[in-house]
Amino acid sequence: MKNKGSGLLTDPGTSPIVLASQSPRRAYLLQLIGFEFLIQPAQVDETKFSEPDPAKHVLQLSYLKASNVGDVRTDGLIIGADTIVVLDGEILGKPADANEAVNMLKRLSGKTHRVYTGFTLLRADNNHSVSDFEVTRVHFRDLNDDEISSYVDTGNPMDKAGAYGIQDQSAVFVDRIDGCFYNVVGFPLAKFYKVFMKFE
Amino acid sequence: MKNKGSGLLTDPGTSPIVLASQSPRRAYLLQLIGFEFLIQPAQVDETKFSEPDPAKHVLQLSYLKASNVGDVRTDGLIIGADTIVVLDGEILGKPADANEAVNMLKRLSGKTHRVYTGFTLLRADNNHSVSDFEVTRVHFRDLNDDEISSYVDTGNPMDKAGAYGIQDQSAVFVDRIDGCFYNVVGFPLAKFYKVFMKFE
Repeated sequence: MKNKGSGLLTDPGTSPIVLASQSPRRAYLLQLIGFEFLIQPAQVDETKFSEPDPAKHVLQLSYLKASNVGDVRTDGLIIGADTIVVLDGEILGKPADANEAVNMLKRLSGKTHRVYTGFTLLRADNNHSVSDFEVTRVHFRDLNDDEISSYVDTGNPMDKAGAYGIQDQSAVFVDRIDGCFYNVVGFPLAKFYKVFMKFE
Repeated sequence: MKNKGSGLLTDPGTSPIVLASQSPRRAYLLQLIGFEFLIQPAQVDETKFSEPDPAKHVLQLSYLKASNVGDVRTDGLIIGADTIVVLDGEILGKPADANEAVNMLKRLSGKTHRVYTGFTLLRADNNHSVSDFEVTRVHFRDLNDDEISSYVDTGNPMDKAGAYGIQDQSAVFVDRIDGCFYNVVGFPLAKFYKVFMKFE
């Protein structure tokens, strides 16, 4: 069954919504718009995934994540998602260490990059699904070395694609965006909500 | 003295930073980028202020707020700010009641509006100041009556210019922005930080 209440709130009903992600940011955003859900992170090795087309990359990984959780459940509406940063045609994932984080931020300095988030809604009982994605252009002002090392010292870049989180101290690095803000945080709320309300 | 530490963090030093605003959102954003500050809201009657030019409006009100607090202090670096929503050339302030909130949201539905935030930095000891502003274009998707009344029922629109807060449930109303996101929340972090670091 569908889990849709009146207005902005969802009714958990008898079939739960399941977020197939361990990202606290995605959980926060879904709560923000009134969703109630379980969290059951997918077991997908993203390092072995090498699709070079950004949109296909996030769509396929979001599907793989939702599907992985769907495989071990008999019910539930599963939400999978994947976010990447693309600079000059190259996909930037999460930095392996502080040194790589510094190098990523130096590359992003003074330039516009793109953030892609793909998401998949999948019903565990019949495997019906819908996938979509959003892209947002993000511009960094020129950063100096002190700002970069000070930010990397916080540890915040380490679990984030492109080595920054627009919702943390690096907010001052971003002087403008073009598109959906929450897509940059890791989940495109407006597009997701629209797709969710139409999903049968 | 200036309150600037290394990197992103500020050193409170001997002269405090004073936020002349009672907005919890502005306090949150300043904390986000590592500022330590006092809160001392300005006593300015905004309803008597009628400057029709959006940029002048927010610049002047931010100055009046900083100056009002500067008048009753002998030290401190005062931060004043003002945010407005502009639709079809008309300035939308905070809604007077739920009915006005509904009407504002109906007007914003399916259209692009502009959000202006002006800010002023003012030193209480010598009245040196700098003022600047940021503008962001925000697009609302088409909203239905249920969505609007459900959101107004939360009470969140009542203390916000334009009757919405992009950081709350109305996040799903906004499908794209062009410019600084935090400016829409009520404080343009990137521009403020740049101005702050240069302020003598």
